[in-house]
Amino acid sequence: MNLTITDVRLTPILVADPPLLNTQGVHQPYTPRLIVEVVTADGITGVGETYGDTKYLELARPFAEKLIDRQVSDLNGLFTTADEVAVDQSRVFGQVDVGGLRGVQTADKLRLSVVSGFEVACLDALGKALGLPVHALLGGKVRDAVEYSAYLFYKWADHPEGVACEKDDWGAAVDPAGVVEQARLFKERYGFTSFKLKGGVFPPDEEIAAVRALAEAFPGHPLRLDPNGAWSVETSLKVAAELGNVLEYLEDPALGTPAMAEVSARMKGAARSASDKGGGGRRAGVPLATNMCVTTFGEIKEAFTKDAVQVVLSDHHYWGGLRNTRQLAAICRTFGVAVSMHSNTHLGISLAAMTHVASTVPDLHHACDSHYPWQSEDVLTERLTFEGGKVAVCDAPGLGVELDRDKLRFLHQRWLDDDGSLRERDDEAAMRVADPGWVTPAVPRW
Amino acid sequence: MNLTITDVRLTPILVADPPLLNTQGVHQPYTPRLIVEVVTADGITGVGETYGDTKYLELARPFAEKLIDRQVSDLNGLFTTADEVAVDQSRVFGQVDVGGLRGVQTADKLRLSVVSGFEVACLDALGKALGLPVHALLGGKVRDAVEYSAYLFYKWADHPEGVACEKDDWGAAVDPAGVVEQARLFKERYGFTSFKLKGGVFPPDEEIAAVRALAEAFPGHPLRLDPNGAWSVETSLKVAAELGNVLEYLEDPALGTPAMAEVSARMKGAARSASDKGGGGRRAGVPLATNMCVTTFGEIKEAFTKDAVQVVLSDHHYWGGLRNTRQLAAICRTFGVAVSMHSNTHLGISLAAMTHVASTVPDLHHACDSHYPWQSEDVLTERLTFEGGKVAVCDAPGLGVELDRDKLRFLHQRWLDDDGSLRERDDEAAMRVADPGWVTPAVPRW
Repeated sequence: MNLTITDVRLTPILVADPPLLNTQGVHQPYTPRLIVEVVTADGITGVGETYGDTKYLELARPFAEKLIDRQVSDLNGLFTTADEVAVDQSRVFGQVDVGGLRGVQTADKLRLSVVSGFEVACLDALGKALGLPVHALLGGKVRDAVEYSAYLFYKWADHPEGVACEKDDWGAAVDPAGVVEQARLFKERYGFTSFKLKGGVFPPDEEIAAVRALAEAFPGHPLRLDPNGAWSVETSLKVAAELGNVLEYLEDPALGTPAMAEVSARMKGAARSASDKGGGGRRAGVPLATNMCVTTFGEIKEAFTKDAVQVVLSDHHYWGGLRNTRQLAAICRTFGVAVSMHSNTHLGISLAAMTHVASTVPDLHHACDSHYPWQSEDVLTERLTFEGGKVAVCDAPGLGVELDRDKLRFLHQRWLDDDGSLRERDDEAAMRVADPGWVTPAVPRW
Repeated sequence: MNLTITDVRLTPILVADPPLLNTQGVHQPYTPRLIVEVVTADGITGVGETYGDTKYLELARPFAEKLIDRQVSDLNGLFTTADEVAVDQSRVFGQVDVGGLRGVQTADKLRLSVVSGFEVACLDALGKALGLPVHALLGGKVRDAVEYSAYLFYKWADHPEGVACEKDDWGAAVDPAGVVEQARLFKERYGFTSFKLKGGVFPPDEEIAAVRALAEAFPGHPLRLDPNGAWSVETSLKVAAELGNVLEYLEDPALGTPAMAEVSARMKGAARSASDKGGGGRRAGVPLATNMCVTTFGEIKEAFTKDAVQVVLSDHHYWGGLRNTRQLAAICRTFGVAVSMHSNTHLGISLAAMTHVASTVPDLHHACDSHYPWQSEDVLTERLTFEGGKVAVCDAPGLGVELDRDKLRFLHQRWLDDDGSLRERDDEAAMRVADPGWVTPAVPRW
């Protein structure tokens, strides 16, 4: 068995994305992803997936060169090797992270976002070489299926007229009835039993009404609302007070650790005071979740010390891979903070990776997020499926997925054919196509 | 390849131990250890080692039974399985941990101490089955050799007269000159370049004198002093002030997180005040290290929030194995706390395990502790060696060690022949042989 890496292939692609709305704008009709393939001397190929914007691609290319002749099992070495790749500082400072609302943008985080694609590819190759599923390389699954939640979006029926795009069959959702109808479809198609609504799109009262409509239509189903930091502390507290009895958690109502800590502290204060007045049974506010103020190891200390968040939503892409995700979970466990998983637009490779790592985290008590149902295109020979809202953990060697080279070529050709305008995910620019005067609203928006 | 566990063998042994002194008493002439062997369906045997006192053995036996038919790769499952083993509460509460000064004693910690022996055995077997060294199963080494420090002890030349024992050739060390002579031997025999003195044995002034003598004899060599929590806060501060310029760190001067936090805070306060008065260059006190107040994940939050310690000395035995040690290292890194390794009496299997995991921790900036040079007996066909104070990381499959069955049988026979008096490590009882009136001193002793 020869585990030496002899080839690394990077394939940027553009995949269809429906017109999903968020506080910054709307998803473009196509979004960039990067497919990573690592090939060993024995001819085994492992696949990974990460962000495909140019800034990631710029780092991935020199990084890939450094991996040749290294061992595919040398996962710790990926980080030291990544540190040797220079990051163009113009990619780090002064640039709004327009696409994914992915939190702070640092050189280290860019590196980790690139490393994660390679780490997953190495784990896939290593698993195939050893005859072990990826979860076994992470110490073994503790559950046979991983639960996901339906990721509801306000959306238009179609991308703006005249824009090249793939048509989706989800219809529009711009009011409570539309959101409930979308949730029904999600439940019908995939069996999801918990729902997350991407908010920050309409004034808070409309989104409160949408969550209330969901609560009425799906009693007992865990619900979440995520305005991506669009609200002030006061608005956050108001929404929390109004939806406190139906929300599993409130995700990033306000932007940044100090604001989140204030929301958290004032909710606890209010609950204490209510309890002093005899309102005993009331819980201490709505738990706050984040994938925006805790997105790097460097942000944990302040947030945990201030009790700013009660749930961290990990994204293995920017945390640096599956092993780092497990480390994050251990840190959360140690500090009494819950952990679950965030999702940005992703394909089946990443869903498989998420499922493997999630299957190994003992105290995963919230269903994970996934955009996967929104992605009609994929690079796999066979799509992953949700049954009862769950993805079964695969016991085949590696990730248990197979690359479809025709599909990969087709999506890569789309990337090649693009004039550059879609190679950077830019929800603000996409919104301007429909609304020429649009600029990403200042925060807090409400 | 069949990774199913088909047999587990537990062999309690008694190994020779010199008359090393600590604040509770003296090491017994023989100390119990437990050797764990895990055998797979393919006939591959992995070895591990942990504490051998009866309370560990009592847990290890039912645990071993539960592992039959499980996969040797199912390392996460070891913890859930261990949770199913009942712990006799009389082993947990009201019992002083007389032997190892190993910190708090909880049911979970007892379980983790047992799990660690099995985890290492499973990693050894898995590595052998896959053709990978244990460090590769942990993501790969980031260094080729691991640095250890000389572990100096006050000691008698011999165990008390009339006690059956093996003779050692280290001589006595009961004053500064004896300690320096012992350090010279350590350096000559193993090349160690840093020194730790086990303190808490003599009044602080004598131990301060010993450390000063070491600093004079070995200028520029990192020095540590560890009185195992025997001092008051005031005494800790006094020693820190007197040795501040020569100590790499001070280990557990006072007992428990509140006392350590007070020492830490008052040192910082004094440094700030000195700096306000123009004493600019002075560092903010001596870093405090611990293997007593942070010995479980449950103790981390309080200690880190209070900045009670600046270095955590992990012991993979009671943290639950090599993978948990890596998680601890990640937590420490995240909170700006340094990590290194503690040692209790151990044999070559554990030294190999420590070396594998230490080789994978990127930010290991302090030499690890090891009792190994004190152990003249081992269960391996070939002893591990220190060169220049370092142990080379082995790239052979598994741990890279081989069990010597004759030696194992001999040491097990000693355990069988014992009337029970040595099967529990009890430094207090061992001291009473020389000093019939001895009781472990109340803390703080000075």
